[in-house]
Amino acid sequence: MKRILINKLNNYLNQEVKIEGWIHRIRVLKSITFLILRDRTGLVQCVIDNNLIKPDDMKLESVISIIGKVKESNNKLNNFEIEVINFEIISKCKEELPIEINKEDLNINLVTMLNNRVLSLRHEKINAIFKVQNVIVNGFREYLISEGFTEIFTPKLVAEGAEGGTEVFEVKYFENKAYLAQSPQFYKQMMVLSGFERVFEVGHVYRAEQHDTNRHLNEYVSMDLEFGFIENEEDIMNLEEELLKFIINKLEKETQIYLKLLNIELPKINGSIPRIKFSEAIDILRKEYNKTNLDKDLDPEGEKLICEYAKEKLDSDFIFVTHYPRSKRPMYTMPCGENETHSFDLLFRGIEITTGGQRIHDYEMLINNIKYKGLCPKNYESYTEVFKYGVPTHGGLAIGLERIVIKILGLENVREATLITRDRHRLIP
Amino acid sequence: MKRILINKLNNYLNQEVKIEGWIHRIRVLKSITFLILRDRTGLVQCVIDNNLIKPDDMKLESVISIIGKVKESNNKLNNFEIEVINFEIISKCKEELPIEINKEDLNINLVTMLNNRVLSLRHEKINAIFKVQNVIVNGFREYLISEGFTEIFTPKLVAEGAEGGTEVFEVKYFENKAYLAQSPQFYKQMMVLSGFERVFEVGHVYRAEQHDTNRHLNEYVSMDLEFGFIENEEDIMNLEEELLKFIINKLEKETQIYLKLLNIELPKINGSIPRIKFSEAIDILRKEYNKTNLDKDLDPEGEKLICEYAKEKLDSDFIFVTHYPRSKRPMYTMPCGENETHSFDLLFRGIEITTGGQRIHDYEMLINNIKYKGLCPKNYESYTEVFKYGVPTHGGLAIGLERIVIKILGLENVREATLITRDRHRLIP
Repeated sequence: MKRILINKLNNYLNQEVKIEGWIHRIRVLKSITFLILRDRTGLVQCVIDNNLIKPDDMKLESVISIIGKVKESNNKLNNFEIEVINFEIISKCKEELPIEINKEDLNINLVTMLNNRVLSLRHEKINAIFKVQNVIVNGFREYLISEGFTEIFTPKLVAEGAEGGTEVFEVKYFENKAYLAQSPQFYKQMMVLSGFERVFEVGHVYRAEQHDTNRHLNEYVSMDLEFGFIENEEDIMNLEEELLKFIINKLEKETQIYLKLLNIELPKINGSIPRIKFSEAIDILRKEYNKTNLDKDLDPEGEKLICEYAKEKLDSDFIFVTHYPRSKRPMYTMPCGENETHSFDLLFRGIEITTGGQRIHDYEMLINNIKYKGLCPKNYESYTEVFKYGVPTHGGLAIGLERIVIKILGLENVREATLITRDRHRLIP
Repeated sequence: MKRILINKLNNYLNQEVKIEGWIHRIRVLKSITFLILRDRTGLVQCVIDNNLIKPDDMKLESVISIIGKVKESNNKLNNFEIEVINFEIISKCKEELPIEINKEDLNINLVTMLNNRVLSLRHEKINAIFKVQNVIVNGFREYLISEGFTEIFTPKLVAEGAEGGTEVFEVKYFENKAYLAQSPQFYKQMMVLSGFERVFEVGHVYRAEQHDTNRHLNEYVSMDLEFGFIENEEDIMNLEEELLKFIINKLEKETQIYLKLLNIELPKINGSIPRIKFSEAIDILRKEYNKTNLDKDLDPEGEKLICEYAKEKLDSDFIFVTHYPRSKRPMYTMPCGENETHSFDLLFRGIEITTGGQRIHDYEMLINNIKYKGLCPKNYESYTEVFKYGVPTHGGLAIGLERIVIKILGLENVREATLITRDRHRLIP
C-alpha cells in the first residue's frame, strides 16, 4: 500500500489509506487514544481503539505506520481525522527527548537548540527556516540561468588565501600546505575570462576568524556571481535589484505557508534601491546620528544606522553604499579616481548582505594595484597570468546566504539559518 | 547602446548593433580585414575597412567592442555578417597564446589542457562539456524538488572521517584537528531524521587518496540524496531510474546544440535498468569472461566487463549490481542476511557512477554493526545518538558528477569534466 502524505489526505475522504510519520502528541482516554501524527507536510489526528495498542507503544517521537480510514471530523488541525485500523511501530523512541518539540513555540535558547540540532529541526517553525532558504537559493539560480549565467564549481582547496588575508584554515595536502578558500573570487573571474562570460556559484567558503558574533560563521554558504562586458558597477547593482525582486516574488508565491507560520512580511523593492556614496554615508552618520568615529569603513553600528536612515528617510529596507575607499577594498577592485573604487555594499535591515564591484581587467593596472596594496605580484601569478590574454570588463558580487535568510525571517543569529554550525566552538556534530 | 549577443543577430538584419567578444580569427586583405568575433553564444564574421584599424590592433583573443550593420551574407558561419562602423579595443591580448584555440579541435594533451585551463575552456568543444554538466546538475535538483526533497548544505569540516577511512585531509581548526568530509553521509541521514524526510545535496567532497587514475579526483562534486519511509533498496533504485530518465530527457531538450557539436548520442533507458546480484556478477565474470580473481568486490576491469555484458546481453548502457557483500560495505549499510546487504552500485558504460543502499535505522542494530565492522561506537556518538529518537526506514545514494559527465560525453578522464582540477599534483591555479 502506498503511503499518503498528510497534506493530501483530504482527497481520500472515507477511503482506507496508509500514513507514516512521527508521534507528535498523545492523549489516552479510557477506551480510545488520540494520537497526532506528523509527517513533513503536516499534522493529523488519529483515533485508536486502545485494544489495538500496548501501553508501551505510545511514545512521543516514535516513528509509526498507520492504516486507517479518513473520516470527516471537526478538530483543530483539519476537517478530517484517521480512524485507525492497523498500527505498526517502525522505530520506537528509546529515550525521553531532551527538548519539547510538540509545543507551538520551541522556547529554548540557541545553545540548547544547536546542541539538539536534529531534534530542534523537527519543530515546524525551525524546519520552515530551511524551506524558505531553499526558495532563496533556487530563486538565485533560476534568475541567473534565465540571464545566461553558467553554474560553476570551483576548488575550495587553494594554494593561497584568495584575498591575501591571514584568516585562512590550513590543510595538509600531501607534502604541501593548502588553504580553504575564503571566496571563489579569483576562480569566478577566471571563468568569466574563459569564455563563460557570466557565472555563478553557490558553495561553502571558509573564514578562520576568531570572532564569535551573531553574524559570523567559520563555514558559510556564499552565493557568488560574476559577469563580463559591463559598463561599471551600476550594471551589477541593477542586476542585483532584479535578482532580489525575482527572489522576493518567488518567496511570495511559494512560501506563503511558511511565512504565515513564522508571521513574516516580505520586504518590498519599489522601483530601485537607493544608492548613496560611502562618503555621503559618513556625512549622514555624523550629521544625523552624531556618530563621528568612522572614516574608512562602516562598523556594525554604522550599518545599522544607515539602514535606519534608509527606512525612515527613503522608505527602503535595502540601501546600496557605493564608492568605498580604495584603501579598504581588495587589490582586484577597480579604482575610481585616486581614493575611491567602483565597488559597493548592499545593506539590508541593519546588516551588510552583499559586497560587490567592478574588477580591474587590465593586466598592468592589476599588477600596479597589487603593489599599491603592499602585496607581491609574484604570489598571484596563477591568477594574474590569465589577464594577458584578452579580458572583458567585468564585475560581480557575493550574497551571504545565512545573512539574507535571517534578515528576511527576522532572526537574530546566522546560526539559526545553518543546519549544522561551524564556529569557534562547534565542530560536532 | 545595448550589446546584442551573436545568436540573436538574425533579428537585427540591416540594423546597427553593438557586439562584443574575443577576436577568434583574422584574415587581412588589401583594403579590408575579415575578423571573426566570438562571444559566449557563437561566432560572427565582421568586415572592417582597413582604414579603421591600426596594424597592431589585430591580435587573436583581444577583447573588442564593435558597432556595425547586420548585412545578409553567405559565409560558413551564418547567413549574415557585420559591416563594421566603429571598432574599439577593450583589452588587448598581450602575448601569443600558448595553445591554438581557434581550430575545430583543440588537439592538445590533457596536461597542456589543464596547464592552460582558462584558455582551453575558451574552445567551444571544451566549454560545451560544462554546459552539459549544468543541465545534469539542474536536472538532478529539479526532479528531486518536484518529488518533495529539500536541498541541504552540510559541513565539509568534520571532526572525524565520515566513513572511518584513513584517506582524509587534515585541517588545523583553531586548537583542534578537523578533517575534510569524504561524503555528507552522516549529515544527510541526520537531516532525514530531523523531519525533512527527503534531502539532497550537491557539493564538494574530499578524498586524500594517493592514486593518480583517470577516474579519481581529490576534490569532486557529489550529488547526494537520502530519503525516508522506504520499503528497501528497490525504492532507491526505482527513484534513480526516474531521476536518470528525467535528466536524459532534459539533456535531449536543452543541450542539442552541444551534443551535436560533440557528436554525442544520449544513452537510453528503456523501461527499467537491469538488476543483478553481486554474486551473479561474479558468476558471469567467471563463466563468460574467464575472470576468476574477484570475490568480495568488482575491480575496474570487472566493472567494464559487466557493462559489456549489460550492453550485449541486456541491451542496456546501465546496470544495477545489488546485494554487495557485508564485508565491503560501510557500517551504516542495512545487512541482508548474514553476508549480503541491501545496497547497490550503478554501473554505466564501464564505470561505477553511483553507490547506494538502505541504511540501518535501528539504534541497537547500528551499534552492533559498528562493532561487527571492528569499529568503536564511541567514535560515532554524535551520529548514532540521534537514532534513539524515532527513525524512519531510509536510504539513499550518491552520483559522482564528473563521472556521469565523462561517460555521457565519451570522455576519458574525470579531469576533463572539472573546471579546476585538484589531484596529487595540482593545487594551482
